[in-house]
This record gives sequence, C-alpha cells and structure tokens, in this order.
Amino acid sequence: MNPVLLKKVLNGLARGRITVAEAMERLRHLPFQEIGHSTVDRHRALRQGYPEVIFCEGKTVQEIVQIAAHICATGENLLATRAGEEVYQKLRQQFPNAVYHRRARVVTVELRKLRKAKGFIAVVSAGTADAPVAEEAAVTAEIMGNAVRRFYDVGVAGLHRIISKLPELSRARVIVVAAGMEGALPSVVGGLVGTPVIAVPTSVGYGASFKGVAALLGMLNSCAAGVTVVNIDNGFGAGYAAALINKR
Amino acid sequence: MNPVLLKKVLNGLARGRITVAEAMERLRHLPFQEIGHSTVDRHRALRQGYPEVIFCEGKTVQEIVQIAAHICATGENLLATRAGEEVYQKLRQQFPNAVYHRRARVVTVELRKLRKAKGFIAVVSAGTADAPVAEEAAVTAEIMGNAVRRFYDVGVAGLHRIISKLPELSRARVIVVAAGMEGALPSVVGGLVGTPVIAVPTSVGYGASFKGVAALLGMLNSCAAGVTVVNIDNGFGAGYAAALINKR
Amino acid sequence: MNPVLLKKVLNGLARGRITVAEAMERLRHLPFQEIGHSTVDRHRALRQGYPEVIFCEGKTVQEIVQIAAHICATGENLLATRAGEEVYQKLRQQFPNAVYHRRARVVTVELRKLRKAKGFIAVVSAGTADAPVAEEAAVTAEIMGNAVRRFYDVGVAGLHRIISKLPELSRARVIVVAAGMEGALPSVVGGLVGTPVIAVPTSVGYGASFKGVAALLGMLNSCAAGVTVVNIDNGFGAGYAAALINKR
Amino acid sequence: MNPVLLKKVLNGLARGRITVAEAMERLRHLPFQEIGHSTVDRHRALRQGYPEVIFCEGKTVQEIVQIAAHICATGENLLATRAGEEVYQKLRQQFPNAVYHRRARVVTVELRKLRKAKGFIAVVSAGTADAPVAEEAAVTAEIMGNAVRRFYDVGVAGLHRIISKLPELSRARVIVVAAGMEGALPSVVGGLVGTPVIAVPTSVGYGASFKGVAALLGMLNSCAAGVTVVNIDNGFGAGYAAALINKR
Amino acid sequence: MNPVLLKKVLNGLARGRITVAEAMERLRHLPFQEIGHSTVDRHRALRQGYPEVIFCEGKTVQEIVQIAAHICATGENLLATRAGEEVYQKLRQQFPNAVYHRRARVVTVELRKLRKAKGFIAVVSAGTADAPVAEEAAVTAEIMGNAVRRFYDVGVAGLHRIISKLPELSRARVIVVAAGMEGALPSVVGGLVGTPVIAVPTSVGYGASFKGVAALLGMLNSCAAGVTVVNIDNGFGAGYAAALINKR
Amino acid sequence: MNPVLLKKVLNGLARGRITVAEAMERLRHLPFQEIGHSTVDRHRALRQGYPEVIFCEGKTVQEIVQIAAHICATGENLLATRAGEEVYQKLRQQFPNAVYHRRARVVTVELRKLRKAKGFIAVVSAGTADAPVAEEAAVTAEIMGNAVRRFYDVGVAGLHRIISKLPELSRARVIVVAAGMEGALPSVVGGLVGTPVIAVPTSVGYGASFKGVAALLGMLNSCAAGVTVVNIDNGFGAGYAAALINKR
Amino acid sequence: MNPVLLKKVLNGLARGRITVAEAMERLRHLPFQEIGHSTVDRHRALRQGYPEVIFCEGKTVQEIVQIAAHICATGENLLATRAGEEVYQKLRQQFPNAVYHRRARVVTVELRKLRKAKGFIAVVSAGTADAPVAEEAAVTAEIMGNAVRRFYDVGVAGLHRIISKLPELSRARVIVVAAGMEGALPSVVGGLVGTPVIAVPTSVGYGASFKGVAALLGMLNSCAAGVTVVNIDNGFGAGYAAALINKR
Amino acid sequence: MNPVLLKKVLNGLARGRITVAEAMERLRHLPFQEIGHSTVDRHRALRQGYPEVIFCEGKTVQEIVQIAAHICATGENLLATRAGEEVYQKLRQQFPNAVYHRRARVVTVELRKLRKAKGFIAVVSAGTADAPVAEEAAVTAEIMGNAVRRFYDVGVAGLHRIISKLPELSRARVIVVAAGMEGALPSVVGGLVGTPVIAVPTSVGYGASFKGVAALLGMLNSCAAGVTVVNIDNGFGAGYAAALINKR
Repeated sequence: MNPVLLKKVLNGLARGRITVAEAMERLRHLPFQEIGHSTVDRHRALRQGYPEVIFCEGKTVQEIVQIAAHICATGENLLATRAGEEVYQKLRQQFPNAVYHRRARVVTVELRKLRKAKGFIAVVSAGTADAPVAEEAAVTAEIMGNAVRRFYDVGVAGLHRIISKLPELSRARVIVVAAGMEGALPSVVGGLVGTPVIAVPTSVGYGASFKGVAALLGMLNSCAAGVTVVNIDNGFGAGYAAALINKR
Repeated sequence: MNPVLLKKVLNGLARGRITVAEAMERLRHLPFQEIGHSTVDRHRALRQGYPEVIFCEGKTVQEIVQIAAHICATGENLLATRAGEEVYQKLRQQFPNAVYHRRARVVTVELRKLRKAKGFIAVVSAGTADAPVAEEAAVTAEIMGNAVRRFYDVGVAGLHRIISKLPELSRARVIVVAAGMEGALPSVVGGLVGTPVIAVPTSVGYGASFKGVAALLGMLNSCAAGVTVVNIDNGFGAGYAAALINKR
Repeated sequence: MNPVLLKKVLNGLARGRITVAEAMERLRHLPFQEIGHSTVDRHRALRQGYPEVIFCEGKTVQEIVQIAAHICATGENLLATRAGEEVYQKLRQQFPNAVYHRRARVVTVELRKLRKAKGFIAVVSAGTADAPVAEEAAVTAEIMGNAVRRFYDVGVAGLHRIISKLPELSRARVIVVAAGMEGALPSVVGGLVGTPVIAVPTSVGYGASFKGVAALLGMLNSCAAGVTVVNIDNGFGAGYAAALINKR
Repeated sequence: MNPVLLKKVLNGLARGRITVAEAMERLRHLPFQEIGHSTVDRHRALRQGYPEVIFCEGKTVQEIVQIAAHICATGENLLATRAGEEVYQKLRQQFPNAVYHRRARVVTVELRKLRKAKGFIAVVSAGTADAPVAEEAAVTAEIMGNAVRRFYDVGVAGLHRIISKLPELSRARVIVVAAGMEGALPSVVGGLVGTPVIAVPTSVGYGASFKGVAALLGMLNSCAAGVTVVNIDNGFGAGYAAALINKR
Repeated sequence: MNPVLLKKVLNGLARGRITVAEAMERLRHLPFQEIGHSTVDRHRALRQGYPEVIFCEGKTVQEIVQIAAHICATGENLLATRAGEEVYQKLRQQFPNAVYHRRARVVTVELRKLRKAKGFIAVVSAGTADAPVAEEAAVTAEIMGNAVRRFYDVGVAGLHRIISKLPELSRARVIVVAAGMEGALPSVVGGLVGTPVIAVPTSVGYGASFKGVAALLGMLNSCAAGVTVVNIDNGFGAGYAAALINKR
Repeated sequence: MNPVLLKKVLNGLARGRITVAEAMERLRHLPFQEIGHSTVDRHRALRQGYPEVIFCEGKTVQEIVQIAAHICATGENLLATRAGEEVYQKLRQQFPNAVYHRRARVVTVELRKLRKAKGFIAVVSAGTADAPVAEEAAVTAEIMGNAVRRFYDVGVAGLHRIISKLPELSRARVIVVAAGMEGALPSVVGGLVGTPVIAVPTSVGYGASFKGVAALLGMLNSCAAGVTVVNIDNGFGAGYAAALINKR
Repeated sequence: MNPVLLKKVLNGLARGRITVAEAMERLRHLPFQEIGHSTVDRHRALRQGYPEVIFCEGKTVQEIVQIAAHICATGENLLATRAGEEVYQKLRQQFPNAVYHRRARVVTVELRKLRKAKGFIAVVSAGTADAPVAEEAAVTAEIMGNAVRRFYDVGVAGLHRIISKLPELSRARVIVVAAGMEGALPSVVGGLVGTPVIAVPTSVGYGASFKGVAALLGMLNSCAAGVTVVNIDNGFGAGYAAALINKR
Repeated sequence: MNPVLLKKVLNGLARGRITVAEAMERLRHLPFQEIGHSTVDRHRALRQGYPEVIFCEGKTVQEIVQIAAHICATGENLLATRAGEEVYQKLRQQFPNAVYHRRARVVTVELRKLRKAKGFIAVVSAGTADAPVAEEAAVTAEIMGNAVRRFYDVGVAGLHRIISKLPELSRARVIVVAAGMEGALPSVVGGLVGTPVIAVPTSVGYGASFKGVAALLGMLNSCAAGVTVVNIDNGFGAGYAAALINKR
C-alpha cells in the first residue's frame, strides 16, 4: 500500500483535521488506486524511457490522432507502429517534430531526450525483405533510450556475411535477429555469441513458409540456448524486450 | 515396343512357323509386357546397383524373411530398412553374410560386389540424435555402390564444426544433410557449396518441433538454392536419390 | 587457407620486403577473406553457369533495376524471377537483350553464352495451370546452360499421356515434375524411370488443396524412391537443383 | 404417415369400436412412431442386405457380446468391425457360425443367406500394408450380399500392376481403392475407368503422412472426376457405400 | 490387347499382304494405342452422357474459348464450371445455344440431347448460401443426362424442413448434400435414408469454419454409414459422381 | 401430438361429420405438422423476445430487403447482423424506425417493445479493436429484451482496469467477454466471479494469432470453470446465448 | 473496500485507541485482503453449492489424498475428476462416504446436503462411447445441487431417438450435449429448443476426427443459435457451467 | 585473427627461425582455429558461469555417463536435463557430489562454486503441474550462478495469488513464467511489471490444448510488451536465457 498517501490520511485523521467519514471517502478507492499506485509506480519507472505506444493497425486516422494528442499532453515520448503515410501526415500537422521512419512504418514524437543506456543493442536481419521488421525493432529500442547498431542482409545463405560481423556483434548486450523463410539465422547467431538473442520470425517467404510459421517454428526449436522468440513480424515486441534487457 | 521380341514373333508368322492364333496368343499380353519390358529394362538398369528394398515397419518377421528369400533368389543385393534386432537374427539364420547396421536399423545382404561410382556422397548430421537417419542414408548409398563419407554432429549451434569440414565437403558430388529441431544445417551447407544438397528432416526435438515438422518446413523454405527435401526420417529416400544423382 | 595469397605474404616477409606489422595487417582479415576466398572460389565455380538471381516479389521496380545493374556490371548472366510486366519493361530499357519469359514470369539477361551440359533435363507438368511453375524451372535450367525438354499437361487423370512420353523421359538425366491438386504425377514418373526426380508442388487447386499443401504432402510421401521435393511453386529451386545435378 | 395403422384406428373409431379417448391414446405417440415407421420402413429395406454393425473399438468384450446377442435375436446378419482375437473367441462361444476375418479384424455372423447383387465390387489396395483396410471394405460388402473381387498391392510405384488389371477393373460396378502414403492410386484408377470410385485413405506411412492426412488430402483433390472419399482407415464405410451403390 | 486390330495386322502379314517391316511399323505404337484404345473405349462410354469439362478458374477467357471450340468441334456436350459472366458472354458469341446457369456459375452447351437415366438424383442444400455449390452439382448431373430434384435451404437448424422432404428424398437413387458451417446435414440425411449420399462441404461460414474445413471434417466423420465426401465447394465432382452412380 | 387438433378430427369422425378418408387426408401430414406444431410452440416462445435474424454476409442487398420485409410482416423484431452501411440505407427506406448500430454493424427494427428481463448482462471487451464484436453481442441481447452494461477496453495488460469493475461485474447474471490476441480476459473474469461467462474470441491480432485461433484455443483451455465459448467473432451467438440464460 | 473493517480501524485511530503506526500496520495488506475479501465473498457464494475440485490427471495418488484431506477439513463437498479406481480406493479409506462414479471416473464426497435448484439440467449424449464425458457433466451438476435427467445414445444417425425426447428436453433449463465424431447433435438439439445448449465435443472417433477436433469445429460452427462450447472431453466444465446457469 | 599466435609465427619467419613452408603449415588451419579461437574466447566467457549441458532424452545411460565424464574432466559444472532416476544413480556412482533435482528431472554436478550475480531471477508457475518445467528453469539458472526465487501455483484462475506477490516480483531482474492450458499468466505478469518476462508454455492440459500449442500461441500473442517465448516445456532454455540476461 502506498505508505505516503496512507500515512497522510491517517495523520490527518489522528490529528483531527479530517473526520472518519472524510477518511473513508478518501480511502474508498484505495485498493484500486493502490493497484493503480503500483501501476503509477510502474508507470513512473516506465516514464524513464518507456514510450507510450499506439498500434495503428485497425484504428482510423482520427482515432490515432486523438490518442496521440492525449499521450503527448502528458509529455511522454510517442511511438506509433504500423503507421501508414497518411497517419504520419496527419500527426505531423499537430506535432511538428514527428518523425516518420518510413521503412519501419513507425512514427515517433520525442518530447524529451532520454539518457542513453550504456551498452548497445544489435539488430540483425537475414534478408532485405526482413528489414522493415528489423527497423521496427530498432526504432522502438532507440525511442526507449538505447544505442542500436544495425546488421542487415547477413542471412545464412552467405555465411561469411554474419561471421565477419561477429567481433562487433559479440559486444552487444542483447541481439535482435529478424528472419523469414526458414528462420535459421538466430540459431547461427545464438551459437556464436554468449548474449541473449531475441528472434523475430517474419512473414517473408511463400508456399510452405505459411506466412512466417516456418520461421517461427525454426526459432522456437533453435538448437542454440539463449534464444527467445516473439510473434511473427513483431519487431516492436522484440525491440521493447531488448530495451528492457539492456536497461537491466 | 520391344522390337526384338516383336520382330521374332512377326518373322515366325511371316515365315509360317507359327499361326496367327499362336502369334496373337504370344502378343496378347504384349502391351503390359511391353510396359513390363520397359520395367524390365529399368530393372536391368536397377540391377546395376539398385538394391531390392524391404520396408520392415508394419510387417511381421515371417513376412520379411519370406520376401527376403524371394529377393535373394534373384541374386540381387538386399536392403531391409527399419529392421529391429529380431529381424536381423532371423535373416542371419538364412543369409549368413547378412550385416546388421545397428545404428541405421538396416540389414544388408550383399550377394554381388558392385563397381563403385567415381565420386563420393557426403552424409552430414546435425546432432548425435540425427545419426540413425543419417546412417540409413549412408548404408543405402553404400549398398548401391557409392563411396560415402560421414560428417556427424556438426550442427549450426557450433558453426566452426561444419566450416572446418568445408574443403572436404565441397568435393562431394552430392550431400545428404540430416537435421532435426530447426533443421537449419542444410541451408548453411547449401550456402557454402555448389553441390546438390538433399535435406532430411528428422523427428528429433520436442514441443513445437511437432515430430519433425519444424525441420521439414525449415528445409522447404531454405534460402539456399539447390536444396531439395525428402520426408521426415526418410534416410533411405535421401540415400537412394543421392545414389541416383552420383550415378549420373 | 588460400595458399597463393598466404605464400605471397610469407615470402615477402621472409625476404624482408614487408615487415611483420605489414604482414599482420595484410593477414588480419584473412580468416574471413579466407571464407570469402572459398566463397570466391565457389563463386568462380558458380560463374561457370550459375546466374545471379533476383527474387522480385516484395521488391520495388527501382530496387530490382538497381540490383540488376549491379549484377550485369560483373558480366554475369541475370535471372529475375517472379517478375511482372512492368519489371521487364524497366529492365529492357537498360538491358536491351533482356528477354521476358512471360508464362514463367522470369526475365533473363544473357551476357555470355554458356557451354551446354551434355544431357538434358526433362521438365514435366501435370496440368495447364501448373505450366508457369514448370516454365520457371525450365528457364532457370536453361540460363544455367542446360538443354531442357518440356512435357506439359500429362497428368495422371489421363495416364496414357505420360506413358507415351516414357521412352524420351527415361533418357533425361534428371526430371522436374510440377503438379498441383493431389500431386500424384511425381510418384508415377518416379515409379517408371531410374532417374532423379525433383517434385514441385504447385498451389493449383482449391478447398482442401490448401494452396499446394495437399500436393506437397503427396510428394513427400511418394511411394517411389528417388523423388525429392522443393517448396510450393518453387520452380526456380527445382530448376536450379536440376542444373546442379545435370552438371555433375 | 403409416396409413395401415392409422386407418385401423380411424376405422375402429368410425365404427364405434373404440372411443375418441382410446383413439387419442393410440395415436398419441404416432408422430414419432411415424418417424419410427419410416425408420422401420427403412429398416425393412436394410434387412434386405444391410447387416447390423458393432464398432468394437472402445467397447468391452462383454458389451460387444451383449449387443451381438441382441442383434442375432432378430435374425439379422451381424458385422463386428475392429474386433480383436479375444472378441472373436467370445463371440464364437455364443454363435458357432461366427467367422473371423483376421486380416480385416472383422467378425461376421451370417444368419440368413442373402441374394447376391448382379454386378461385382472391385476392392483395390495400393500396398500390402493397406490390405487390412481393404479387407474391411471387402468383407463389409460381402456380408451385404455383394460379389467382391480383390486387387491388392497394385500401387502406382509399379504402374504396370494396376494397368494389367484394367480390363477386369473396368467391368466392376463400383471400385473401392485403399491407399496410404501419397494416396495417388484412386486418381490413377479414376482416370482409367468410367466407374464410381470410393477412395479410402489409410494411415499407412510415417513422418509427413500425418497418419493418413496426406493420403486423405490427395484423394479429396483428385484430378479424376467420379472419386469420392471416406474417413482415414474407414474400410467399413467404403464397403457399405459401395454396397448401396451396387444395389442401385 | 485390342484383338480386332491386332488380328487384322497379323492376318495381313500371314497372308503376305504386308511385310514384317510394315507390320512392325503398325504395331509400334500399339501398347500406347492399346491403352489409348481402352481409353477410347472409355471415351466412347463417356460419350454416352459424359460432358467435356473446362474448369475455368485460372484460365484466361481466350484460353477457355479456344478449348471450348476444340471440344464443340467433336460434337460433345460442354460443361464449363466456375465461369464468370464474361466467360459466358464470350462463349455465347461462338455457341449461340450456350446457357449460363448464373447461380452455379456454369456454362453448358448441349450439342446433342441425352437419353435420361431412369431414376432421379436429389440435390440438397443446407442454407441459401450453399445453393451455388448445390447448383453446380445439379447442373453437372443434368448435362450428363440425369433428372435432378432440388431440396434447398433445409438445414438442421430447422429439422422439420428436411423431415418433411423425407418421402420424396428416399425415392432418389443417390443424394448430393451441400452444407457449410458444421456440415451436419449429410449425417442427418444419411441416417434417414438407405441411399448413397455424396456430401459436399462448402466454404460457407466464418472464423473456425476455416473456409469449409469444419464442414469437411464433420462429413468425413459422419456417424451415418453410406456417406462419401468430395472436396470443399466441389459441386461438380459431387454431381459427376452422382451421375456415374445413377447410371449404374 | 397436438391434442386439440387431433381431438377435433377424431370427434368429427366419431360423430360422422367426416369420413375415414377425410380424416386420413387431414391427418396425413400430421407428423410433420406435429413437429411443425412443436416448432410453432417453440416459435411462440421465441416470439416472447427472440428476434428474427438475417446474417447479411454473402447475401445481396436485395435479398436482405426481401427477407426483412417478410419478417417485419409478421410483426416480429428484426436483427440484421454483419450489415454494411448500404444495407442500412436500403432498409431504412422501407422501415423508417430501422436503427443502425454502426460499430456493431447491426441493423435492428423494433416493431414491439419487449418487457425487459430482470437482471442485466455484462458485455466486456479486452481492447478497442474487440468492441465491434462486443457491440454485436450487446445489441443482440438488447433487442431480445435484456438490460446490458458495457465494460470496454479492460484487457489483462492493465489488470487494474478489470479489477476496478469487479463489484459491478459480479452482479451481472451472465457475462460476455470478447477478446482477441491471447484471449486471456475470460479466464481472469471467470476466476473472479461466480457467474456464467461466455467467451468470444475475436480475430484481432496478427501473425501467430491466426485470425482468432490463438484466442479461441486460449478460451477453450481456460483454467477458470464456468467459461463456455462461441465461434471467432460470433458476437451475435454470444449475445443470443446470454439472452437465453438471462431469461431462465 | 471492505467498509466495516476499514471503519473499525479508522474509528480506533480517531478515538486514539490505536496509533497511526498501528493503523498503518493493520491497513498494510488491505488492498490484497480487499481483493481477498471479494474473493472470500465469492467463495462464500461458492460454498452455496460449489464443490472443491481436484483434477486428478497428472497428480500422484498421495497428492490427491492430501489435497482431499485439506478440502474435506473445510466441510465442503469434494469432486475429484479423472480419478482412477486406485484413487477411489485410497480416498474411501479416509472418507467412508466417498462415492465412485465409475463411468464418469469421478469421486464425490458429499459432506453437506445441498438444497436442489428448481429446474433440471438435461445431459444428452450422442453415442454410448460419449457417455463417460456426459456422466462427468451430470455428476458435476448433481454435486452442485442440481437435478439432472440423462438422455443417452440419441445421436443423429437415428434421428427419431432425439425427437422422441423433445417434449421432456424442452422443459430443461439448460442442456448439455456430448458428442464425438462429427458432433452434429448440439446443432440438432439447439434447433429444436429455446434453451441454452452447452456442447461438449468428445474425443470419440478415429482418423480425421483428430481426437475430437472435428466435433469441436462442428459445434463452434453450429448453425443453431444459443449453443456454446467447452474443451474436448471437458464434461466437468460443461456440468459446472450448466450448474451456474441453472442457479441463475 | 588471433594476433598473439599469428605474430609469433610471423616473427619466427622474419627472424629466419622457421621456413616459409613451416609457417604455412602452422597457419594452414588458422582460419578455423581463428573461428575456434573466438569460440574459445566465447567458451572462456562461458566458463564464467555457463554449465556444460547434456539433454538426456534419446541418449542411453551409458552415453550420458561417458559425455558427463568427458565434461567433468574439464572441471566445468555439469547440467543434465530430462534425466530419469536411473541416469542419476549411474552418475552418482562416478560423481559423488551429483545432485538430483527430482521434480525438475535434472542432475547437476557443481565442480566449482560460482560467484552469484547481483539480482535475482523470479521463476513463476501457474499450476502445480507446471512446476517440473519451472524447476528445470530454476535449477538451470542456479547452476549458472544466479539467485532464484520461486513463485509457484499462482495462476490467473485465482488472481489474488499473483497480485499478492507483485511487490517481490517487481524487484526481480528477469521473470520466467511457466504455464500450460491457456497460458495467460505471462500476459498478466507482463502487464504488472516493467521487467523482461520469458514465457514457457507447458504441455499441461488436454483436448484443444494440443500438448502446449494453445499456451504457446497465447504467449506469442501476449498483449503485454516485453514478453518473449521459448519452446513448449523448454524450462532449460528459459532458465538459460534468464541467466544470460541477469548476467548483463
């Protein structure tokens, strides 16, 4: 229970400044405020680098702008994922410093500069087509105050590409790997480094890739320990989890 | 149509040595004999290295022994796959030179020595648990007159293992790669060599490996060109296809 | 390790033409160059008939043209798969000898004539609707320097069609069979010839064909030995693997 | 509505032999008796060749024997499918003329001889392992008064086998085809004859056969018209439907 | 083997009217002609009521018109399934008596009147949305010379609807039942009649109907014997099989 | 059996007012009328609050208007689900008091006011995107005469939201919970209350949500007792079942 | 917030009977006690008829007995589902009035008699093999204080069976329907009554029943409104939900 | 490239102590040694807390003991997962300080004490049946030098259980959550804390849980950001990844 708030009420009561009825009224919503409080607490923590996020898919442009206005009023940084060109144009009208990360289909509005975490997050993609998902992860991690280094188009079909990046990769504090088709890259990376790897299957592929299922299964069955997985095309989730880990 | 056989019958008829009725009788089954003939033709070809095969699963020991006796009477080499210890014991009683390849669960009876094909077939396995399937492929290829080199336990979790084999691997004329779990090894191998790769998914794994489905999908979606795939755990099929290719 | 390059450096050092520091600098990237070297080696091999390939799906026309320009600058033959009419029109502007294989949806730019491999590759399709996939395989094999003979619309519903092609088919060195719906044709062909068969399931069908899954499963479970399988609609992969085999 | 029964009641009422109340009592259950009547009607039809069937799987031996006693008391022929040795032994004690079709795992008790239908039903199996399912179909059709001709082990891997049976096959009035693995045989047969084909996928196979799913999908997507399908391993259902068709 | 043709050749040879070389030439293609002959035989049979069929999906209008012209030149009846309005308009220009069955999306061109089979085929649909599939079955059966009676919108949610049709239904010689969603209607019908039932799952439904898979599985697992199944939305296949059965 | 109708006929017969033949004629269709009668009975019950429903998906606007006219002629309330704007516009022309529930995509025409059931139904949604499905449930329940209270956007990612609603939620007589993605909310709600919970999985999500399958499976496996499930996006079904329960 | 408890603490503080520190200590755990309180509230409600439940599968006999002892010490009725013979024998030793419902594989210990709810719950099963699941539902509902009427073996293959039960069925306040195979019975029942129907798919069946998946899908896609579904073989869940509904 | 080793060779050459041939011989395997070196590097890192792991499933006891002996000879800590009682007994004979974590089915041999990481890892399980998987995660993390706090049996069906642990949970540096059935717990935990959550689906459940697939999908679709997922029942992988994160 929020001791400060509670003590204040109880002291007021003990000192006769408020009546029992008033105390009860103030405490009436405490349990949920309390949970709200821990939430607030958590939110406070979150405020130290966590953006407010809008998942734009399935929302109208108008709805998105309204939610964005609500968020920006709090002074928090905004992250709008799966945002089309039109969403960006509308947001830019209201928030002049809105930035459109076109490849990632992400709009960010950075209202206050964050102190960067010490290490860096590596974001790796297997093929060119996986880059939008990788970018969503990278931009998410950046808006949360992380340095990000990108290693794109280094898939296993040309193994020398990823091996040549190994020295730098192995200095990352957490690695996000986006890959479609057979999704083998996280296994290869995970086998080469002693770093947490977050694998993001992408829907890149055709036929028996089943829109990312083949990659997803491949990653879940990775023979390299230390690999965890997020949903297909969920670059945001990977970037977010990587940021939480890097902040540790 | 088999011209030799046909001409013989027609000449007999033209020369009055046989009647029309006799000619018809002899030709009556020709169409299917004909197909049979091309089959025989093919079988003749097969005889130059193709074993007769018994898939033991779902057959009684007695049935297997009977079929084996039938095959060995033709003087052909015998290959009995998915054969348990008991099958071997019974076969050994009848065919003293029967050999049990325990790890592959294969019994071979080599009745005539085959001339070896020129090149060699590489058989690669990702993990120790994939070895039985790899062995089934290797033994199948060997009984068909091929030199086989084995590269076992060289999965992608420790990439240096497969890379160190590269010089030798790249001299193979065809490569069989058996892997379970995420099945990434064929992609890595296929990306490193310019050789046909036959990928065999194995049922090694648990949970979302779905008894080899994850590996199967991974291999079908391989980002490396030149990789073809056989059924889960089908070491025999991979070895057989490799032998056909090496014989080319 | 690349002995020529290495020897040169070591000789320079032994003869005092370079210092240890210089030698180290030159050798510093050797491991990856080394892998790069084997890659180059491989690439050299590839250059003897392997095209550079662009998978156009999911790339913008502009991106495709840029990559194509990059490839053609190396003097290699170009193969652009899944290329629409618009892609072709743009490529033709830059590369006047670009050829559009409309049915296969493939653009080729042949910058140097390849010596043909000795045998031929048979490309077989079950139905008219499977022809685009079959054509992708055929054109791929051709640009890699192979003679290709086409056997189209010879599915199992009218068995006499494929049987009448048998004499010619059985002379092929490798056979690609594209089929949708139940995908039975590779089993039938594989049972009639002693030749490697590469089966390509197509997404032709409806309902419980599940966009090629029924054909894929049928081919993976083929009762004919010697059949290997590629991804649904992956005509390119089949043609590429067939070319590798024919080159053996 | 059962006119005989109804008329009798109404006549009784019209003639004053029964009161309205009695008539109502007798008619109270008529609607369901009526449906029961059409059922009886149907059952009468069924009695002309339809056996009473016990699906033994999941029933205790005791339960099976009780149901069998109940059925045999009606003088109808009995068909007990998926019956193990023990079931047969117990049934034989009570019904001395019980016959055990061991391969089909079916027990029949023929209490009255049926007049045979005119034509015959062909029952075809692809491999030896499919024979139990084929036998279940054959025995079911026989106990329903049909002549059955068996064509076993004629799968597509050796096409000449089924082609050589064509003349006889094409005289059947309906053909049951049991096949596992890729399940291609019904397509081949359906393409060769102008006869209804009932395809039975069997669970024979391994890996990506998924216990008969590959065969099932293959059959549902048959490119030959006139092929209909029953559940995996449902030899009984195929034989039953074939008998209904032959009786037409 | 076709004895008439064969005898003629052999007699010619025996009588010196043709040489051995000529006899060989004439017999050279016999095996396949032979198969072709049985095919012709079959085709002859087919000509007695079997239409030539074009599956229009995935074909251009031009291709369809060409194939149609080819077929109509033989004097056979034409059935073009999954034909859109545009296909019909083009066909009508060439074949004035082309009829468009709009709901079934089928075009028929009846070039010669067929003698009707004796019995009738019942075509049943569960809901209004299943009617197009049912119509495809009905029109297919009709063009093959069968009387068809339609029973539409009689699904199990209002059981009295199908029960009230029972007397008429039970006189059909074969019943086609099209149903989507849970696909329960064939089980109910199959339990009420002693007639072969061909079940057609339709893709009607949403969510966990998985585009007809729920209905397909329901029908394959029907607790009523005598029910066989065709592919999802395959009204043509059901109508064709029903026609084969009714013709028996 | 409908005793009034039956008695009338029998009395007429007993009193000689009608002949046996006439009685038989009148009774001929009784069984089905009888079922019809129980149906009518049921329909009478239904009339006490059950709307007539049109599922608009897959129907033309014209068809919908015709069916609606037919229904409204009976004086019953109308519920048209999955109705687009155009459907509403057309319906409004004919039925001026038609109401369009835009978010639910439902049109209602309330021709007679229903007496409200005593308790209320709670309709809960996890996210904003689930609201259309929740609304479909809510509007369905309302048109059936139920008070509905909405609790939207209270998903488990912010647990305090649902907990703060608990006191009010626990007074509902039945709770409908719509959720997509992982579908965890019904488990949480079901664990907190002692009320029947009807879970509606929605197709909200992407990737491995498989259009609602993940949510569906989650709900079917709920660790909270008392949770039952309807089809994906089936807000109507949930609202209908909730109304049946509340009416109890 | 629990006002009584809170007021007491605040009054004590206001009146100086306790210090602020003491008040804080007492209030420290209030939020969770509060939730606990609502839980207790709920539990109190539950005590009015809700049993304590042990799901025995995957627990050792010893563990089960310990949990049972713990529960019975509270005086609540016990329900142990999926309990084998051995579990019962051990429980009987400790709780002499333990009853084993063998078919349902359920042990109950009724420590206090419950007042019966007014209406009754109908429990319906399609086939004999579905009876264990139906019994689990029935016994669960009974131990929760409900009258249950059983209607077993009334599946759709013999429709008259369920129709003859209609008058009684339609008086139930809620109906549980257990069915395997195609799972059509709930649709038929739901179409005949105006009562909530809880459908329980069972794993009865083989082949494409996929251990209950066919039945599950059928039920989720029921064309009858008012049908909700629980997990495969989850008789307990159905009985529990039915009891909650009947208690309303 | 390993500069020390390289320099030594080059210096030797420059100084004439070795010949060019000798230098080449020594450098010949450098590239792979080089990779081996980075591997060694990595392995060195690993040695600082990473155990050597044996996955016992599918290995014989003898094989396991041999591998264990090999590992222990290096002085590293050993972790043998999925180890039955017999494996432990055999290992204990050779390694007296082997410890059997029976519930986790894990054997550990701790040969050198590790310095504990600063923070702690929380391991949470939803139900009692999930505890073995949770324990595997916990023991894995512990042998890697982490403090672990266990929170078992706190699933969402009784939400107060997890909420009451929140204050302690939120202090963890990473949280592992194991849950079967609907797998909702990670979403709830992830929504309450700002900590990385690793979700482990377990195969606990029945019917439509599909051996953990329902839980897996639920976790992949978690509406709470920061949740990543490992394979079904992969407690080891979760514990290993958690240890990598905590070590950061």
